[in-house]
Amino acid sequence: MQAWIESINWTEIGTKALTVGLQLIAILIVFFIIRAIGRKFISSSFAKMSTQKNVSEGRVKTLERLVNNIFSYILLFILITLIVGIFEYDVTALIAGAGIIGLAIGFGAQGLVSDVVTGFFILLEKQMEVDEYVTVAGLDGIVEEVGLRTTKVRGFDGTVHFIPNREIGSLSNHSRSTMRALVDMSISYDDNIDEAMLVMQQACDRVAMEDDLIKEGPHVVGVQNLGDSDVVIRVIAQTANMEQWGVERRLRKAMKEALDANNIDIPFPHQVYINKDKA
Amino acid sequence: MQAWIESINWTEIGTKALTVGLQLIAILIVFFIIRAIGRKFISSSFAKMSTQKNVSEGRVKTLERLVNNIFSYILLFILITLIVGIFEYDVTALIAGAGIIGLAIGFGAQGLVSDVVTGFFILLEKQMEVDEYVTVAGLDGIVEEVGLRTTKVRGFDGTVHFIPNREIGSLSNHSRSTMRALVDMSISYDDNIDEAMLVMQQACDRVAMEDDLIKEGPHVVGVQNLGDSDVVIRVIAQTANMEQWGVERRLRKAMKEALDANNIDIPFPHQVYINKDKA
Amino acid sequence: MQAWIESINWTEIGTKALTVGLQLIAILIVFFIIRAIGRKFISSSFAKMSTQKNVSEGRVKTLERLVNNIFSYILLFILITLIVGIFEYDVTALIAGAGIIGLAIGFGAQGLVSDVVTGFFILLEKQMEVDEYVTVAGLDGIVEEVGLRTTKVRGFDGTVHFIPNREIGSLSNHSRSTMRALVDMSISYDDNIDEAMLVMQQACDRVAMEDDLIKEGPHVVGVQNLGDSDVVIRVIAQTANMEQWGVERRLRKAMKEALDANNIDIPFPHQVYINKDKA
Amino acid sequence: MQAWIESINWTEIGTKALTVGLQLIAILIVFFIIRAIGRKFISSSFAKMSTQKNVSEGRVKTLERLVNNIFSYILLFILITLIVGIFEYDVTALIAGAGIIGLAIGFGAQGLVSDVVTGFFILLEKQMEVDEYVTVAGLDGIVEEVGLRTTKVRGFDGTVHFIPNREIGSLSNHSRSTMRALVDMSISYDDNIDEAMLVMQQACDRVAMEDDLIKEGPHVVGVQNLGDSDVVIRVIAQTANMEQWGVERRLRKAMKEALDANNIDIPFPHQVYINKDKA
Amino acid sequence: MQAWIESINWTEIGTKALTVGLQLIAILIVFFIIRAIGRKFISSSFAKMSTQKNVSEGRVKTLERLVNNIFSYILLFILITLIVGIFEYDVTALIAGAGIIGLAIGFGAQGLVSDVVTGFFILLEKQMEVDEYVTVAGLDGIVEEVGLRTTKVRGFDGTVHFIPNREIGSLSNHSRSTMRALVDMSISYDDNIDEAMLVMQQACDRVAMEDDLIKEGPHVVGVQNLGDSDVVIRVIAQTANMEQWGVERRLRKAMKEALDANNIDIPFPHQVYINKDKA
Amino acid sequence: MQAWIESINWTEIGTKALTVGLQLIAILIVFFIIRAIGRKFISSSFAKMSTQKNVSEGRVKTLERLVNNIFSYILLFILITLIVGIFEYDVTALIAGAGIIGLAIGFGAQGLVSDVVTGFFILLEKQMEVDEYVTVAGLDGIVEEVGLRTTKVRGFDGTVHFIPNREIGSLSNHSRSTMRALVDMSISYDDNIDEAMLVMQQACDRVAMEDDLIKEGPHVVGVQNLGDSDVVIRVIAQTANMEQWGVERRLRKAMKEALDANNIDIPFPHQVYINKDKA
Amino acid sequence: MQAWIESINWTEIGTKALTVGLQLIAILIVFFIIRAIGRKFISSSFAKMSTQKNVSEGRVKTLERLVNNIFSYILLFILITLIVGIFEYDVTALIAGAGIIGLAIGFGAQGLVSDVVTGFFILLEKQMEVDEYVTVAGLDGIVEEVGLRTTKVRGFDGTVHFIPNREIGSLSNHSRSTMRALVDMSISYDDNIDEAMLVMQQACDRVAMEDDLIKEGPHVVGVQNLGDSDVVIRVIAQTANMEQWGVERRLRKAMKEALDANNIDIPFPHQVYINKDKA
Repeated sequence: MQAWIESINWTEIGTKALTVGLQLIAILIVFFIIRAIGRKFISSSFAKMSTQKNVSEGRVKTLERLVNNIFSYILLFILITLIVGIFEYDVTALIAGAGIIGLAIGFGAQGLVSDVVTGFFILLEKQMEVDEYVTVAGLDGIVEEVGLRTTKVRGFDGTVHFIPNREIGSLSNHSRSTMRALVDMSISYDDNIDEAMLVMQQACDRVAMEDDLIKEGPHVVGVQNLGDSDVVIRVIAQTANMEQWGVERRLRKAMKEALDANNIDIPFPHQVYINKDKA
Repeated sequence: MQAWIESINWTEIGTKALTVGLQLIAILIVFFIIRAIGRKFISSSFAKMSTQKNVSEGRVKTLERLVNNIFSYILLFILITLIVGIFEYDVTALIAGAGIIGLAIGFGAQGLVSDVVTGFFILLEKQMEVDEYVTVAGLDGIVEEVGLRTTKVRGFDGTVHFIPNREIGSLSNHSRSTMRALVDMSISYDDNIDEAMLVMQQACDRVAMEDDLIKEGPHVVGVQNLGDSDVVIRVIAQTANMEQWGVERRLRKAMKEALDANNIDIPFPHQVYINKDKA
Repeated sequence: MQAWIESINWTEIGTKALTVGLQLIAILIVFFIIRAIGRKFISSSFAKMSTQKNVSEGRVKTLERLVNNIFSYILLFILITLIVGIFEYDVTALIAGAGIIGLAIGFGAQGLVSDVVTGFFILLEKQMEVDEYVTVAGLDGIVEEVGLRTTKVRGFDGTVHFIPNREIGSLSNHSRSTMRALVDMSISYDDNIDEAMLVMQQACDRVAMEDDLIKEGPHVVGVQNLGDSDVVIRVIAQTANMEQWGVERRLRKAMKEALDANNIDIPFPHQVYINKDKA
Repeated sequence: MQAWIESINWTEIGTKALTVGLQLIAILIVFFIIRAIGRKFISSSFAKMSTQKNVSEGRVKTLERLVNNIFSYILLFILITLIVGIFEYDVTALIAGAGIIGLAIGFGAQGLVSDVVTGFFILLEKQMEVDEYVTVAGLDGIVEEVGLRTTKVRGFDGTVHFIPNREIGSLSNHSRSTMRALVDMSISYDDNIDEAMLVMQQACDRVAMEDDLIKEGPHVVGVQNLGDSDVVIRVIAQTANMEQWGVERRLRKAMKEALDANNIDIPFPHQVYINKDKA
Repeated sequence: MQAWIESINWTEIGTKALTVGLQLIAILIVFFIIRAIGRKFISSSFAKMSTQKNVSEGRVKTLERLVNNIFSYILLFILITLIVGIFEYDVTALIAGAGIIGLAIGFGAQGLVSDVVTGFFILLEKQMEVDEYVTVAGLDGIVEEVGLRTTKVRGFDGTVHFIPNREIGSLSNHSRSTMRALVDMSISYDDNIDEAMLVMQQACDRVAMEDDLIKEGPHVVGVQNLGDSDVVIRVIAQTANMEQWGVERRLRKAMKEALDANNIDIPFPHQVYINKDKA
Repeated sequence: MQAWIESINWTEIGTKALTVGLQLIAILIVFFIIRAIGRKFISSSFAKMSTQKNVSEGRVKTLERLVNNIFSYILLFILITLIVGIFEYDVTALIAGAGIIGLAIGFGAQGLVSDVVTGFFILLEKQMEVDEYVTVAGLDGIVEEVGLRTTKVRGFDGTVHFIPNREIGSLSNHSRSTMRALVDMSISYDDNIDEAMLVMQQACDRVAMEDDLIKEGPHVVGVQNLGDSDVVIRVIAQTANMEQWGVERRLRKAMKEALDANNIDIPFPHQVYINKDKA
Repeated sequence: MQAWIESINWTEIGTKALTVGLQLIAILIVFFIIRAIGRKFISSSFAKMSTQKNVSEGRVKTLERLVNNIFSYILLFILITLIVGIFEYDVTALIAGAGIIGLAIGFGAQGLVSDVVTGFFILLEKQMEVDEYVTVAGLDGIVEEVGLRTTKVRGFDGTVHFIPNREIGSLSNHSRSTMRALVDMSISYDDNIDEAMLVMQQACDRVAMEDDLIKEGPHVVGVQNLGDSDVVIRVIAQTANMEQWGVERRLRKAMKEALDANNIDIPFPHQVYINKDKA
């Protein structure tokens, strides 16, 4: 026991601790200075760029946040590398089973690498830009930031979703073209189908005339389904992006009122009661 | 501490940084020149090809986008290789646990390799071409681009789906032959089945005579089901590709009107009310 | 910088590029010649075989497509091997982290190996032949091609499914024997069960007498269920392969008409309304 | 280029190809002779065994098909080993990245090893024999063959299921003992429970007296549930194996007729209509 | 070719085959002798143990079957080791890619190791004994055998489930204490809750007095739910193990009859029909 | 053959077997002595501790069972290590493919390591103590023992669940604070909402005054939902731990009676029947 | 045997055990002293910080708990390293298959590394702070602590959820902005849509005037759906964070009362009864 305590070179440990401490402080000071300068430089560069060049605003925002994101991670990586560099021999000396720990880290960190690889290709292939409406990993919303590791999407109810890129399998981008508005109207089995389709088409045409956001149609395409108690007729239109819901609401209202005005029934659930006297 | 600062050879670092910077710039300039030339060359080659040779338009589009895609990735790969080549000794010198990081990269990147292997066979086996209607990874739509890493499919509602190839297991291609139109009509339990089938067949024949898109049938195949309150009779036809929905709508309308004209009931949900006096 | 440019031996690179290019062209020419000859040879061999020997047509088709499939892949494998052989030293020289990339390829390609191993055993154990009706990976249809890597199945609606063999776990083959036709008929709670079973058996016997496709039965097996408002009686028969649906339709129609003729009710959903005066 | 062509020793390649070809043919001839002899020997051995010894028929069938199965695979394994032995040096010489391919094969083939390990223990522990009724991997049916790699089960509708052994997790064997027949009868809330149970027990006893297949019971065990509109009474019996469905059908019919004869209601869905004048 | 045939030393192969064959036979004979002796010894040891010592019967059965199970596997392991030992050099000589096969076996067999590790801890921690009622891997039943690799559970319908131990995650043992009987009774909204609870408590008390199997309670705990058309009152009791279902049946019957006797309604589904004249 | 038998050194084997046997017995005797002493020591230590120090009873129970658990596993580990140490050279000599087996064990045992790592952190972070009510791996109940490998939870119906720690992902502990009681009451569309909320609040206040277990509230928070035929009003309270169900029952009864007393309807499912004469 | 016992150097073992024991005690004493000092220092540092600087309270709490958490784990890691350092040679000497065990540990511990890596990035990217309302791993609640390994979330019903960070995939933070209140109101098919929307908008405006928590709107956006028996009109507003539920309740009450006051129906489920005399 005693021999063990004496065997420790206290002076050496003290000196070492001091050196390491000073190095750490020096590295951290340099780190914060470089970070401050870098961020200022990036934001001023993008400010110029967005005023001088003809790049779309969404693309500029995506790039600025991305460059900031990458800059932060590279700085962090260098910082950690330097700090580990200071400690490493001592750490290695302490830990016996370094190989095992290395293995565990290798496995454990593969999720991180997957994040970065996926993020890299999402950016390279321009799968989404800031301010686009997307569905990723089962979550809907407007893109706030596409980073190398994490994508930030704001849902329509105000929630902010942080999504590790590896969780993004198939990515659905709803902001790349005109969108389809689709309305199914029900009429009763006793009404004349041709008359109903005519009335609906006229109502649609009236809406389309007053509405710039409808790009094509609406077309009444025919009998989509013979339901339990209703004949379902489908209407399809193309609208400006993100306006499909508004257009659908207006079409629904207009067609409901047109059918009412022409005495065509929108049927409630029916049940035929047959009076049977047997039994 | 002091010794540590002095031990750094500032001149050497400066020279190195300069050299690396110049090399980087030279590489990037060459990269952009080659990319511009390559793209121009590819697009003009395919322009010629599509006018001179008898290759289907869909195939030409698939190949042009693919060649562009592969060309981009190969260029990118060479670029990264060269850049890493410039840095690598320095990086290796910095990082202690390079083996661990390598392991993590190897695991993390296996998704990327899966993408490329799967993409390669999708192309080789011609599983889909641009402009075909397919179902992949649970998403429906028209193929816009088949790349080595990602497939781009545009849904019918206008959404663009980016699908990593590894997520494509079974691929269903709906554009390779005539398609089946299938309509189930319900009649009441009290109607004569033979009469109803005759009326339906006659209505179908009338539709088929006026409609080039119906390639075979429609055939009334018989009693498919005895439902809770209806006898279900099935009709099957073969139609031109992508026209199955339109044909189904026309058949539904024609048969509904024919059954009405012959006083055959399409039954609403029935319930028999038995008046029981016990209790 | 300058030194770096000068250090590159431009002549050597030019010579090398030329040599590699010529080798590539030579290999590709030989490749296409061998492929053309091979395909012709295979198709003529199978043409002879199918006329001279007593092998079933389905088996001949399976084998011809398979041999073509394997021939293509072997040729492709040799081609890639040769091309990689030409480039490899240069590639290796460029890439620092070859081990990592190898690891990633090894993991990424394991799906491919799984495909081939599974495909090999599907063929060896004759689990399916071309033109048989099977269910694989949740998809129904007629087998079009059983390849080493991919199985091609055409659904009844005309869709072509490409299924990587590794996705085929349990494989259900519906074309290997007579099939069972199963019809459940409902009668009302007030009808006599014995009488209903007799009427149904007689109707079934009449159908069976006129129908070669029914191989055994149909047998009325008894009261399968006492439902909410009906007594369910089950009928089972054995039919020629793929004819089970047609037979079921004919049995349903015949029994429905026989029960009607004997005044036995097929009950609609019942509800007993008890008039209760308390409350 | 020229040098490369000349560097190929055409004579040597020709000689080699010839030798390899002859070896292949010799091996294949021997292979088919041994296979024919082996199969004949196995079938005659089992024919003797099943007549001379007192082994159950199912066990004999299982063993014969298994021995055939193993014999085929061992022969195949030796064949492949010999063929690979002929080619291997050449193959190795060609392929640069053999380690990578080996790794991929090792991973890809682990499914095959899982199949064999699982199959071995299914056989060793006699979890199923040919002609038993089992549920494996969610599929019901009669066992047709238990192989080292694949189990073949024929569903009751005639479909043949090929199930890789690794997909067999929990295996349920329904042919190892008497089975339980379970019938739930509903009576109305207004009927006397004791009387109904007595009537049901008497009906059950009559069925049991005439039916050898009922091994124990049936016992009327009591009020299992107080449903929305019915009191559910449960009956349980033990029957000969595979006869549980037939017994259940007979019990259902007998008890329904007994309750009818005693004026005990099997209630249809009830609804109490309360006439309320408020509002 | 000829040289290749001559190069084979036929004599040596013959001698070797003979030696190997004799060794195999010797090993197999010894194997069967040892197995017979071992089994006899084990069964007689446990026979003594169960008569002499005060160990519970279930524990003795578990241990006997386990010891037999382990004895069989160890013997089998030694047998395979010896047989492989005879063949191994020859096999190794034949197979080129032994490393790959080893890798595949290592991966493929990990399921087997998982089975044994899990089985070992199930036994060590006495998670279940023979004849206890458990739920494992989603399957209910009485334990028949707990082996190192497989657990055998007999379902209440007579099916025997073979469950590889690795599939046993959470294990639920229902035979370790008194069990809870839980009955929910519905009364109408118009009845007095306090009166109904009193009537129910009295009925429960009567059942408890005559029934030894009820260990505690039953207690009427209060209004569990205000349903669509009924007020639900919950009753809880503690019963002897495996008797909870019988007790529940008796409580249900007793409380139903008590509520009837006190004119408290068990309500059928209600619907209030409001006659509204607007239209 | 003969040579092979003679080549075996029978004497040496006998001696070895004897030595090994004696060593085994010695080890086992020591093992049982140490275990007995250890257990006695642990239980007496904790007995002292629980009487002398101010540690909560639950914590003492958790610690005692844990220390026993760890003590057992360490002893077992040492025992196995010693036994393997006796056999190992012989085993190694027998088994050829030791590396493969090692690999399989490494993979197979990783579940065990996951158990221990997870268990260690559950204990360290005090995520649960004995006698707390928790939800783990989808199973509810009272904690009986938290071991290094397995957690034992007793469900409210008396079932004992053994849960390997690795199956515990998110752990929900319901015994760490006051709990919320939540009751939703329905009133009819025709009733005055303000009046109903007042009546309910008064009823709640009366309950709260008599009930110490209600820590805060109950508050009537407003119209939670406009249902198909009812207006839903929500009430929330904070109660003593584990008393939330009792409080909910009392609140339900009190509010139901208060609404009745004030002639406010708790509505049954409504349906408006509109008599329509068109047909 | 005897030789084996004698071969053990009992003295050496005794000395060793003593040394190890003393070292252990020394280490543990130092450990507890450092821990106590460290905790005091951390808490006083944060106390100063929260009073002197302008950092938000949530951030201070997050940081303090995190620093405590990291401090504990680092101390624990050093402790374990030292203890293993004392034992390691002896352990290695005992265990033969150390490589295997290392492998198992490496795999088993990868979950732990995943936890720490994920936790590190959650903190770095400030995905959540203490006291924010989040949804992680399917569990809702208020964040109590974000640790390196585990996140502690308190559900609204009082349950404490311990969530290992690796189970946190997509993280949804509901406390970062104003939230949306969304109310769907149903009116009958016979009412005028424009009038109803006007009444609703007026009611909403009245609520908004009196309520500071509503930040924008509420807007009546139009006909969202034509249901079975109702026309659904949607209202959307922006509210202060966490106040969306309260606002929704107030809007529901206000609009219900406004529609009542204007004689606009909120329809109950409708059914049209058609009296049909056929049959």
